[in-house]
Amino acid sequence: MFVHHSDLAYSVRVDQPNPMYARLLQQAIGGPEGELRVMSQYLFQGFNARGDTRYRDLLLATGTEEIGHVEVLATAVALNLEGAKSELVDQVATNPLVAARLGGIEPRHFLSTGLGATPADANGVPFSAGYVDAGGNLRADMRANVAAEAIGRTLATRLYEATDDPGMKDMWRFLIARDTMHQQQWLAVLEELEDPANAPGDFENEGEFAQVAYGFFDHNADAPPPADARWATGPSIDGKGEFHVTDPFETAAPRPDLQPTPHDIHRGPEATSGNGDGNSGPGFLGRIGAALGS
Amino acid sequence: MFVHHSDLAYSVRVDQPNPMYARLLQQAIGGPEGELRVMSQYLFQGFNARGDTRYRDLLLATGTEEIGHVEVLATAVALNLEGAKSELVDQVATNPLVAARLGGIEPRHFLSTGLGATPADANGVPFSAGYVDAGGNLRADMRANVAAEAIGRTLATRLYEATDDPGMKDMWRFLIARDTMHQQQWLAVLEELEDPANAPGDFENEGEFAQVAYGFFDHNADAPPPADARWATGPSIDGKGEFHVTDPFETAAPRPDLQPTPHDIHRGPEATSGNGDGNSGPGFLGRIGAALGS
Amino acid sequence: MFVHHSDLAYSVRVDQPNPMYARLLQQAIGGPEGELRVMSQYLFQGFNARGDTRYRDLLLATGTEEIGHVEVLATAVALNLEGAKSELVDQVATNPLVAARLGGIEPRHFLSTGLGATPADANGVPFSAGYVDAGGNLRADMRANVAAEAIGRTLATRLYEATDDPGMKDMWRFLIARDTMHQQQWLAVLEELEDPANAPGDFENEGEFAQVAYGFFDHNADAPPPADARWATGPSIDGKGEFHVTDPFETAAPRPDLQPTPHDIHRGPEATSGNGDGNSGPGFLGRIGAALGS
Amino acid sequence: MFVHHSDLAYSVRVDQPNPMYARLLQQAIGGPEGELRVMSQYLFQGFNARGDTRYRDLLLATGTEEIGHVEVLATAVALNLEGAKSELVDQVATNPLVAARLGGIEPRHFLSTGLGATPADANGVPFSAGYVDAGGNLRADMRANVAAEAIGRTLATRLYEATDDPGMKDMWRFLIARDTMHQQQWLAVLEELEDPANAPGDFENEGEFAQVAYGFFDHNADAPPPADARWATGPSIDGKGEFHVTDPFETAAPRPDLQPTPHDIHRGPEATSGNGDGNSGPGFLGRIGAALGS
Amino acid sequence: MFVHHSDLAYSVRVDQPNPMYARLLQQAIGGPEGELRVMSQYLFQGFNARGDTRYRDLLLATGTEEIGHVEVLATAVALNLEGAKSELVDQVATNPLVAARLGGIEPRHFLSTGLGATPADANGVPFSAGYVDAGGNLRADMRANVAAEAIGRTLATRLYEATDDPGMKDMWRFLIARDTMHQQQWLAVLEELEDPANAPGDFENEGEFAQVAYGFFDHNADAPPPADARWATGPSIDGKGEFHVTDPFETAAPRPDLQPTPHDIHRGPEATSGNGDGNSGPGFLGRIGAALGS
Amino acid sequence: MFVHHSDLAYSVRVDQPNPMYARLLQQAIGGPEGELRVMSQYLFQGFNARGDTRYRDLLLATGTEEIGHVEVLATAVALNLEGAKSELVDQVATNPLVAARLGGIEPRHFLSTGLGATPADANGVPFSAGYVDAGGNLRADMRANVAAEAIGRTLATRLYEATDDPGMKDMWRFLIARDTMHQQQWLAVLEELEDPANAPGDFENEGEFAQVAYGFFDHNADAPPPADARWATGPSIDGKGEFHVTDPFETAAPRPDLQPTPHDIHRGPEATSGNGDGNSGPGFLGRIGAALGS
Repeated sequence: MFVHHSDLAYSVRVDQPNPMYARLLQQAIGGPEGELRVMSQYLFQGFNARGDTRYRDLLLATGTEEIGHVEVLATAVALNLEGAKSELVDQVATNPLVAARLGGIEPRHFLSTGLGATPADANGVPFSAGYVDAGGNLRADMRANVAAEAIGRTLATRLYEATDDPGMKDMWRFLIARDTMHQQQWLAVLEELEDPANAPGDFENEGEFAQVAYGFFDHNADAPPPADARWATGPSIDGKGEFHVTDPFETAAPRPDLQPTPHDIHRGPEATSGNGDGNSGPGFLGRIGAALGS
Repeated sequence: MFVHHSDLAYSVRVDQPNPMYARLLQQAIGGPEGELRVMSQYLFQGFNARGDTRYRDLLLATGTEEIGHVEVLATAVALNLEGAKSELVDQVATNPLVAARLGGIEPRHFLSTGLGATPADANGVPFSAGYVDAGGNLRADMRANVAAEAIGRTLATRLYEATDDPGMKDMWRFLIARDTMHQQQWLAVLEELEDPANAPGDFENEGEFAQVAYGFFDHNADAPPPADARWATGPSIDGKGEFHVTDPFETAAPRPDLQPTPHDIHRGPEATSGNGDGNSGPGFLGRIGAALGS
Repeated sequence: MFVHHSDLAYSVRVDQPNPMYARLLQQAIGGPEGELRVMSQYLFQGFNARGDTRYRDLLLATGTEEIGHVEVLATAVALNLEGAKSELVDQVATNPLVAARLGGIEPRHFLSTGLGATPADANGVPFSAGYVDAGGNLRADMRANVAAEAIGRTLATRLYEATDDPGMKDMWRFLIARDTMHQQQWLAVLEELEDPANAPGDFENEGEFAQVAYGFFDHNADAPPPADARWATGPSIDGKGEFHVTDPFETAAPRPDLQPTPHDIHRGPEATSGNGDGNSGPGFLGRIGAALGS
Repeated sequence: MFVHHSDLAYSVRVDQPNPMYARLLQQAIGGPEGELRVMSQYLFQGFNARGDTRYRDLLLATGTEEIGHVEVLATAVALNLEGAKSELVDQVATNPLVAARLGGIEPRHFLSTGLGATPADANGVPFSAGYVDAGGNLRADMRANVAAEAIGRTLATRLYEATDDPGMKDMWRFLIARDTMHQQQWLAVLEELEDPANAPGDFENEGEFAQVAYGFFDHNADAPPPADARWATGPSIDGKGEFHVTDPFETAAPRPDLQPTPHDIHRGPEATSGNGDGNSGPGFLGRIGAALGS
Repeated sequence: MFVHHSDLAYSVRVDQPNPMYARLLQQAIGGPEGELRVMSQYLFQGFNARGDTRYRDLLLATGTEEIGHVEVLATAVALNLEGAKSELVDQVATNPLVAARLGGIEPRHFLSTGLGATPADANGVPFSAGYVDAGGNLRADMRANVAAEAIGRTLATRLYEATDDPGMKDMWRFLIARDTMHQQQWLAVLEELEDPANAPGDFENEGEFAQVAYGFFDHNADAPPPADARWATGPSIDGKGEFHVTDPFETAAPRPDLQPTPHDIHRGPEATSGNGDGNSGPGFLGRIGAALGS
Repeated sequence: MFVHHSDLAYSVRVDQPNPMYARLLQQAIGGPEGELRVMSQYLFQGFNARGDTRYRDLLLATGTEEIGHVEVLATAVALNLEGAKSELVDQVATNPLVAARLGGIEPRHFLSTGLGATPADANGVPFSAGYVDAGGNLRADMRANVAAEAIGRTLATRLYEATDDPGMKDMWRFLIARDTMHQQQWLAVLEELEDPANAPGDFENEGEFAQVAYGFFDHNADAPPPADARWATGPSIDGKGEFHVTDPFETAAPRPDLQPTPHDIHRGPEATSGNGDGNSGPGFLGRIGAALGS
């Protein structure tokens, strides 16, 4: 169960409102690198956590923090749009350098929300829960969380660089620090778990497959790995094998012949069996039809 | 530039064709955990790689390997559907235990492809390139790649468990071994990069923000972190700070007041400024209209 | 800023775990009628609220309540999947009536989350923020909120009917009661606003358009409105006009002729102007190219 | 069955063609607030209507009118792009104020359609039928229809404000008048139905739940409802209860413990039961595999 | 402008209502092969048609016919669900063969629409306007229309085969006949246009490129085209060249070196230029920030 | 199985780097007309090909070529962004004509990829596998492939026209030539197949339906087909019928009455049967609930 406090997680100050920067900020709200993704990812991982509540509580705490980050960024969008109401807009009509930004405004900021944020990215593509990585293996989920924070922090540093506004820069310094902590805390969980480096940790590669599990398959025809490539020589990171280079054709196999389909699949004569009298009875679909109708 | 060989990357053998298992296999082709995702992720990271070609070649080699894995799985789908053409379908109409599977078939396998694979997941949701994580920071990308393989390997082990078919089990052992290697190789790159554990590695948290960067913000009202929680005490994983627990209200700030909008935004009287005579001139939209029309 | 409490918003008890019912529950989490939609809708409307905070606080309070409803339903999914681990699954192999449910399980519940909920609907379609209605006019937003609760309550009553499980029925009684209150409270806001019945309320239909604003355009060739149709006779609901039936051809207009395009649009000779010598210079695209290259 | 007439539903005149305005118009075609949404919503509600044809005919009449509105707006897009062919484009290369619009053009208007409309929004996001609200309860559907028109009319007034073109302003006055009528007519149906204000109207909240159905759950920690809040005091809108403020913790419940999963779910040792010798047999997935293979 | 007639385009009769067949029918409504796709494709091609109205009228006539086909199929879905209300459902609980279908029902048919059709495919994936092919070149559009009908007719024959219901079979015979005519009519337009076989027809391959335009690039390492392959020998279909086999490496080129990025892109040190003192000034993002802030 | 060569399929040279042109190029990578679509379409058609490998090999060869085209275009995007790093960006701040382009840049090119391509279109909409047409009938698939190349070639000619850059123009000449060959080769396959012009070719329209299969249904009220319309007179293209004009009302039928639903569907009293005492027992959903619970 959740409670809302009127305070923002951090102060949001915009010294020079800029509608085009409002658009850029959307990437951090609704993009695959944004807060709605990590919020959903941690909350659902937490809701689904089983066994000991140790990690469930951690996931829900940070998922809850991220809801507040969505609020912070939505406020930043609104403040960047707010200033748009007066002089700046006049300048659009007279100052070419300002006018140049007109094309870069997100039209839904004025058409769809009346000067507010949308749950979408910088191109107006709505957030999709398909971005969420939640595989239900604790190690894999932690790997996904480290990755989401690493990508999100990269986006955050770029948004920091793309503004001269002191208020916006201050807000980003805070959010980048939080992304740092979040990367650190998921790595800390992996340390606790004595991360076996091969999620999931309870499936071993046995026999001939143990060999396949440490070979670099070189699918480049003319770019062999450098002599000092860590991924091609030396012990594997999990300590269970030795990296080596493999010709992928060694384990290749001739393609099995796919058989023609029954005639009622209508694949075309080239790929159909049984067009003669003998088997003009029901095929795959006809039998489904019969079964459905029974 | 790419070349295709008729050989499959590994042998695909189906002893007991099973249309419902064909549906489950789709998750490994077109789901967020599947081969189309890693294929696209590595290829685009490779195409966009800049500077030294060392990592570009690695990314493209493995991205190319993954195209072949899509081929392997599509073949497995086709072979599981193939056997559906005869006795099994007859059993549908007479054997309740077989009939039970009818509802679990992916209808597009017979309606849309004529007994072949689709670029979609087990629920028929088309693959979306929105699943691809490619942030353009090498460390963050490697983190994303480790995560994608960890999640993919988790899915693979579950698909392995969900079949008794010896051919399918053999295929999964191979693909799980490859997911092992791919996790290992991306970790090997991180080792080479002397991974700073905070991607991107070239943005430092300074001053007060260095403190914020290692504090666990406890957004749980009544579930404090366990005393031995690695993420709440001890040195941070990057060695640059000390984990500690923070009350998130310490850095909170009162919410700034969002101002009413110009009247022509039509937000409603409650949220509109300037309805008096004095400022009934063009607002935000009116000025845009004027600018567009000039 | 948000805080999480370990308590659930309401007790979740599952007497007879049922994986197929877990799938149906997903519609109430991630479907267009579900909790992720109202949660996102109220939170973003609240984040974007301007002027007086009266309605902002209301929106954020209820948006926050809805996050807890996602948690309740995700827990219900997990509990319905939990029981799947033992006898029930054995029955699959021997009891046709139980086996019948096999096809109705959401495969991602075991393949992708390891027996947990997904941010998706009953068909596994990921939640999309495109479902969110947030137009930025307070009356329109309240209309959208009443609608979302009415549709959500309809779904909830159907999910109530589709189970015999006493625990699940109890949970639905609670959630249906909350949907009642939410419908009521958004209607209460409309009462406060002296809802003008035509959102937005600050744009009047004038002159000839005032007539058009209350005419039922009968686009049915042979199904005239019933004599007592409220929408065809009597005063309009807003009291500003009189309902009447109109022949839509009265305001129709001949289609303007769309002109052929410049040749470099490559529309085909039928729809292209200027193929003669005289105007073989740059067309639309060529001039764009010139402008881009300058 | 449908018939097309060459006449447009209303005259479309563009005095100053403007490619950037063409882009804005797309929001009214393919956005969540647009004509494709209401067209699909009314047609599918009409196709699915059961019992008396009174409302079916109404829904299909207005759904059919909306197809014509898509045609009107597509024509407006084409005419705004048409003028782009000559002087205006030349100005792009020489007049900075005109050049400023270059960035605001929808690239698919020239790349994908050759100067025509797309079934997408102002950001080029394709229309999705996921926007359609059609719950199959007549009251809920009418609520959804009022909301769709309220949001659509808000968008329309903003597009009206964002242009100085007399032809475009005239077209919007007509379409806004139609949105008025459509809001009115759906409200008229609700009046006919003696709208019970709690869709669906045939499910009563009984016993303890009748109390829960009229309590405002204050999930704000520090922003209690204003003393005069209509949603917190006085009789409920449906007259069946009394609004009051409730502490949400009153109905809260301790979270049930989610049990570990069988080992073959591969959730990780922390969340797995049965790793000992005793139960190393098939778990959930293994039994599914056995069932599938039988 | 459009008008609706109460008559259906063809009679819809369901002798044995079957909820699972209702699900299969959805593919023909909202799938990439379905009626919503061709309806949208022809209507938008028609709305955007320029020059002579000859083809515009044809496109709009057939687009309008397709709206009626959506109505026919939605009716078929409703009728297949209707029968579900009584005996059949009872059988679910007692007859394993009937029970088998339970898993195959589209849950949104009862949860979301109350026994009606959805604008989605057989897996519940909402129709997306992204399926629409409308390139704005008349020849290319006609090619796309032939293809859409060919794919749609293939789906229709499969749905015909998958039912034993005489009413459903009769409906499909009609719709398949219409798909035949539609394929024929788009081919007739191509004949009128003296289809140049290379849409668009007004761009010639000149010089060295004329050679490249008729060479089969064999990207198969070990599967050369058969000796009699029509695409590898003989005159090209457009009569402008001679088919031949080409080694794709003949026109290949060494990959250009992509340069490192400015430091403020945060690509990582491996792919960054200018970390020394000399060029620590603003990079790409910093300059954008400066421009935005001016 | 696939192999990568470091060579590009064709040389990519950018003389005047232009970030706005980089955005336009994205349409050819990830749009419905782009290379990811044809790549996926040919590869999946090839993977699913059954019977003789003649066409499978052709499909896989060209699908493999298209992967290389994605690489070529991604390189072109990167090179157009590369030049953005210095003078050009400085000009943004001072030269209005250059500044005008700022709004036209794809923000994800610098925010999400660090100056690289994305698997998305010119508006940043991620590639969706829903664009792929693969119906599993060989003739229909070939029709779809001709269409995809015709639409893709149209896009390519427009991108050729929209640049003055000699390097980009040269690249497009090559790719347009390849689109020519691909159109030709799919047409060549249709010639081989003695294309029956009605895919699928093994379903005949019989009896009364043979008549319906060649009639143009004129759904335009006032725009009869021109006297010389090829689709309205003369022999059909397949030679099996005679084109003629038909009044669509000839085959129309009265709409069947849809029956009210059981009460527990909660459609509202207007559309519900059985509210009396006699049938207040379980309806559709109640019986499903009973079945699920058994």
